[in-house]
Amino acid sequence: MITLETNPKKQTYAIGIDLGGTYIKSAVVDSKGKILKHYKTEAYSNISPKKVIEQIEKCIAELRKRMKHEISGIGIGAPGIVTHGIIKYPPNFKGWKEVNIKKQFEKKYKLETLVDNDANCAGLAELRFGHGKKYNNFIFLTLGTGIGGAMVLNGEIYRGEQNGAGEFGMTTINFDGPKCLGGNPGAVEAYLGRNYFLENEKEEINKLGKEIDFDDIQKLAKKKNKIALELFKKYGFYLGVGLTNYFNLMDVRTAILGGGISNAYEFFKDECVKTIKKRSIKTINGTFRVLRSKINNDAGVLGAAALILD
Amino acid sequence: MITLETNPKKQTYAIGIDLGGTYIKSAVVDSKGKILKHYKTEAYSNISPKKVIEQIEKCIAELRKRMKHEISGIGIGAPGIVTHGIIKYPPNFKGWKEVNIKKQFEKKYKLETLVDNDANCAGLAELRFGHGKKYNNFIFLTLGTGIGGAMVLNGEIYRGEQNGAGEFGMTTINFDGPKCLGGNPGAVEAYLGRNYFLENEKEEINKLGKEIDFDDIQKLAKKKNKIALELFKKYGFYLGVGLTNYFNLMDVRTAILGGGISNAYEFFKDECVKTIKKRSIKTINGTFRVLRSKINNDAGVLGAAALILD
Repeated sequence: MITLETNPKKQTYAIGIDLGGTYIKSAVVDSKGKILKHYKTEAYSNISPKKVIEQIEKCIAELRKRMKHEISGIGIGAPGIVTHGIIKYPPNFKGWKEVNIKKQFEKKYKLETLVDNDANCAGLAELRFGHGKKYNNFIFLTLGTGIGGAMVLNGEIYRGEQNGAGEFGMTTINFDGPKCLGGNPGAVEAYLGRNYFLENEKEEINKLGKEIDFDDIQKLAKKKNKIALELFKKYGFYLGVGLTNYFNLMDVRTAILGGGISNAYEFFKDECVKTIKKRSIKTINGTFRVLRSKINNDAGVLGAAALILD
Repeated sequence: MITLETNPKKQTYAIGIDLGGTYIKSAVVDSKGKILKHYKTEAYSNISPKKVIEQIEKCIAELRKRMKHEISGIGIGAPGIVTHGIIKYPPNFKGWKEVNIKKQFEKKYKLETLVDNDANCAGLAELRFGHGKKYNNFIFLTLGTGIGGAMVLNGEIYRGEQNGAGEFGMTTINFDGPKCLGGNPGAVEAYLGRNYFLENEKEEINKLGKEIDFDDIQKLAKKKNKIALELFKKYGFYLGVGLTNYFNLMDVRTAILGGGISNAYEFFKDECVKTIKKRSIKTINGTFRVLRSKINNDAGVLGAAALILD
């Protein structure tokens, strides 16, 4: 009878915080990846680092209200470069240089605080709670305004020499290609990043109407609009070239797509797969897979919490 | 006194065999990477697998003649795909499908036999006996007819899911670029492989004279011939684009160059380094290094022996 009460696999709980430029998403997550409670608020990244941190603290306070479970720690996923708990120069955060959020929060909350970049967190979420249950080696891509990447090798996030690995968006697929803020002309991001794509293809896109955005193209593709379908075909080709490079180099066979643009995968899947089949080496081209993330919307908070739950 | 005779760091010795399409190089190597004896013979890869194996056995017999040290095992580096001691379809080896050389040799010689692909062996040699003493993360490139790559991550050869990792030559830097036997247009090899380069640049090369090969261009560059120097500048640019992709993706900062073409590095270094500085992400571009291998000519046999000495 006692065994029922002393279950060795005791459930643990962590707070996961997904710090974005516009919103902060946060949640209490259990070790199985179940979200018990969540809270979302504005990031106010255009005001000051102090204001952003206040907003994170507001999330933590809201989540802890009437929470009966003991919290093991706080995990935070943040944009930009993260090393040793310090968030460095996150893009589009006004006045933010280097903030040691780990030190600050561990002092304030007496709870272990772990910080990683948002792409690694999303990859970790996929590894623990998504397709990663089945695949031990994959690249997780966030297809959105930017193109983020997280590499999972042998069941672990690969971080590189200075925690900066996975910059798939900064790999060139055409050295004569369009410019990219990252300084690497013809990089994957200069083709696949939302605004880059809209800019590069504006001639075709203008034929669809005025002020057309990515969602509009997707809606038109659903209605079988030929121009919209052709545009997604291009998107699939560029993604296919980039993924072929990854598969060939790494001898890895799985890619998982997240981010807003992955919702349109049905429209660029065929061309993407066709391109990889055509370009990849013999041992790869019959065996790879490109999948949509199962946990896309919650990947940020789940991955941040997983930093602690791991 | 006794301590002098029972040195705990007992020296071990291995045979290393570098199986090439034209020659087989072989050596007895000690655990410090010193070559005690070497032997080179023709591979006869254009005749039959049986003949090639006879030639390897001839090497082993020659090396063991009057060898007073005990041999711990046989390491073999081979072209093509190698898994579990089986050499599969090495390019340009007539009639060779799949040969389990490990099984065959362990039965015959009663010595542990380990087989890996030649690029990994060269990388392993560099790791144990070359620049790898200083750097724990690097890519080793063989610049020759083909472009081979070996990835060292955290002090170990990274092999990928099916021992096929490191195909740097099969990563595209321009999807509209020249064709490549590997089926991946605009791949690094289609720019940097010896014959590809000579073909792509033939218009300029023809200005230098008739039947000009890579060595001739190098000789002319030494004499400050402008066309030759411009050709190497192009070579450096392509290499720089490829390496930027690697550095950005992997957050690794070291590349080591081997293979025949690396002997001309002085002529393409500046453009290569300039290109990486221009294209790599902020955290990389002041901190990377591209080095020539110190052990280039012996890398094959040293790495093959290191399979055993490890």
